[in-house]
Amino acid sequence: MDLNARFQALISDMKLEGRYRTFIELERIAGAFPTALWHAPDGRQRRVTVWCSNDYLGMGQNPEVLAAMHHSLDLSGAGTGGTRNISGTNRQHVALEAALADLHDKESALIFTSGWISNLAALGTLGRVLPGCAIFSDALNHNSMIEGIRRSGAERFIFRHNDAAHLDELMSQVAPDRPKIVAFESVYSMDGDIAPIATLCDVADKHGAITYLDEVHAVGLYGARGAGVAERDGVAHRLTLIEGTLAKAFGVMGGYVAGPALIMDVIRSMADSFIFTTSLCPHLAAGALAAVQHVASHPEERAAQARNVAKLRGLLQQAGIPAMDSPSHILPVMVGDAHLCKRTSDLLLAEHNIYVQPINYPTVPRGTERLRITATPFHTEAHMRALVDALATIRRDLGWMPGRAA
Amino acid sequence: MDLNARFQALISDMKLEGRYRTFIELERIAGAFPTALWHAPDGRQRRVTVWCSNDYLGMGQNPEVLAAMHHSLDLSGAGTGGTRNISGTNRQHVALEAALADLHDKESALIFTSGWISNLAALGTLGRVLPGCAIFSDALNHNSMIEGIRRSGAERFIFRHNDAAHLDELMSQVAPDRPKIVAFESVYSMDGDIAPIATLCDVADKHGAITYLDEVHAVGLYGARGAGVAERDGVAHRLTLIEGTLAKAFGVMGGYVAGPALIMDVIRSMADSFIFTTSLCPHLAAGALAAVQHVASHPEERAAQARNVAKLRGLLQQAGIPAMDSPSHILPVMVGDAHLCKRTSDLLLAEHNIYVQPINYPTVPRGTERLRITATPFHTEAHMRALVDALATIRRDLGWMPGRAA
Ligand SMILES: Cc1ncc(COP(=O)(O)O)c(C=O)c1O
Ligand SMILES: Cc1ncc(COP(=O)(O)O)c(C=O)c1O
Repeated sequence: MDLNARFQALISDMKLEGRYRTFIELERIAGAFPTALWHAPDGRQRRVTVWCSNDYLGMGQNPEVLAAMHHSLDLSGAGTGGTRNISGTNRQHVALEAALADLHDKESALIFTSGWISNLAALGTLGRVLPGCAIFSDALNHNSMIEGIRRSGAERFIFRHNDAAHLDELMSQVAPDRPKIVAFESVYSMDGDIAPIATLCDVADKHGAITYLDEVHAVGLYGARGAGVAERDGVAHRLTLIEGTLAKAFGVMGGYVAGPALIMDVIRSMADSFIFTTSLCPHLAAGALAAVQHVASHPEERAAQARNVAKLRGLLQQAGIPAMDSPSHILPVMVGDAHLCKRTSDLLLAEHNIYVQPINYPTVPRGTERLRITATPFHTEAHMRALVDALATIRRDLGWMPGRAA
Repeated sequence: MDLNARFQALISDMKLEGRYRTFIELERIAGAFPTALWHAPDGRQRRVTVWCSNDYLGMGQNPEVLAAMHHSLDLSGAGTGGTRNISGTNRQHVALEAALADLHDKESALIFTSGWISNLAALGTLGRVLPGCAIFSDALNHNSMIEGIRRSGAERFIFRHNDAAHLDELMSQVAPDRPKIVAFESVYSMDGDIAPIATLCDVADKHGAITYLDEVHAVGLYGARGAGVAERDGVAHRLTLIEGTLAKAFGVMGGYVAGPALIMDVIRSMADSFIFTTSLCPHLAAGALAAVQHVASHPEERAAQARNVAKLRGLLQQAGIPAMDSPSHILPVMVGDAHLCKRTSDLLLAEHNIYVQPINYPTVPRGTERLRITATPFHTEAHMRALVDALATIRRDLGWMPGRAA
């Protein structure tokens, strides 16, 4: 086989379908968020407004977070030089794990190098060590959960998105004594809708299942202390395990799972993707701890974010731009065509100094290509008006319609 | 099924077998490496000498590395707030990828959040997108390569460790027109032996295979610029892809793969574990870049490390301690029993303020439990004598013998 021809064909196909990805090279400017410097392919630099970041609260530039990181770097240096087991467990990890367990009101927590790995490790391990395990997975679950479930080798049942009745139906078909896990998200990041957590837990309880909730797009943003939607809805105690990231509203990087000490000990002891890798840099753990603490004591910042989201949603809808009516902070604007979506994004950047990445397959299903807009407390009304005006102009010029393919 | 009983049993089994892991809580002290503060379970703190770190050159406390990280933190803040595709590609990533491609004399490089993910992403993707692909994997390959191969779904053939003749035999049994990948390491981290890279490449070439080399324990340490064993042996051009980590000799965190631009583009575009996760913090990329540059221009530091390794090996052997005769910087001292190995490590820490983690299953096969000792340029002769004396005392007291189970 001509391997180069095969690789070429894969790339050509992506280009034909309009889903070949070109990364936009940014230079973040601490203190100026959501403004960043765009390093264009022609070598020029331009200041642009970023409207697609998951640094939802701008914690990536928060002075307390940065101070904690500088301090820990001075104290303990850069990397740990070891896996958690071989000289790689540091005071900063232990402190962060205690804070995360406390945040989610669980006995114990375990940190990983990313949220992606958290899901792979936790679901991959639990499904593997429980003989005959059946995992019930929401149809729109994130890639990292899907990979974890796949890795576990457990039998997988996919229930229709947010559909408790379908979950019940599927669970009823599985022998009562088999171990079961129900895995889902709180805020779904591409549509911005929110799971009926209590109802899904009712079904899981009826069948004696472990419940596993991914709050990656909710931690830091919902609930009295920013523990997520489960905290806001008063149902955190109904989840066996809660998974989150340190890389979005907490502004740093890394992921975690919180839950019963015994289960966390099993994951810690048996997850390959936790065991066989260098641990998170101590100063990242220190920065994340500062972020968790800051967020817990500054509910006004998530309130400001929510206000800005509502304001922008209103402005978009007034201008006739098809912003989906989501109950969360995520504002998807459906375009429904890969080429059109990319063209819109290109024009926003080239002609309006606005950066919104087009979202295409495999991140969303084909035909549902969209712009995914995120408003933060740092976006001003002037930023919003500029975005809405630019989108209205481009939409008129390119001729895409509300609801075209939604 | 009583799930708690099942989890309990898993933990009890590990305890019975002596392979339940207790993490040692350290506080690294920048500037004092290899000394660190040990936070004991009883709350006391003690200064200990770390003899099991993979921060092989002490780059985790290198002033140039730390300065680059501080500077980038000030400039660009903490996290990127995005996946590489969605606002998460930063100037610092692009610069590091260019430097790594140059280091390994390849067209292109791609960074990941860890070396573990690099292997999962690269092997997982290549084996999956090449129809009928056969992957030939060294019997002692690291968990992350095994996971990548498993994820790819490709047919796997395991050749005896470092055995080119066996590789040839296996490859000869596979239809000539099937795509093939030969995957192996340069320095094997638990035994410290080194692959016959050129000979393995001869076999791979004969069968028209892609060659994939994990240099995780070699980058920074071998070759004129610290590019690894392939550079030292003058065979880098014979490897299609070279994988490395930023977390060991480079002292930070993250991983990478370097190779032909077309193949890197395929991995970039199709690897789930690359696409669906927040990118590395920009200041980690900046720190790693400083480390790569520092290492390239300071060959005297790896020479000092090699001298220290040789000196310690001599001292251990003089004292009758069974240090395996490895051709690399890794000094495994075989104990051959999980309980004895752990007991030795416990005594080193409790009575001698020396920290060497016991290495047990699943990191090494059962019956080959060992202490894995790493000397750095920062270990002094006094550190060495203290280690050798302590080991000699403990060995006498516990009665373990040279070569007991090796
Ligand atoms: C729902 C969900 N879970 C997990 C992840 C992975 O988190 P991280 O970026 O920390 O790897 C993401 C996105 O990145 C996500 O959207
Ligand atoms: C051979 C080998 N490859 C890959 C890895 C993973 O690298 P990282 O620690 O950067 O995840 C390790 C150890 O951690 C290793 O020993």
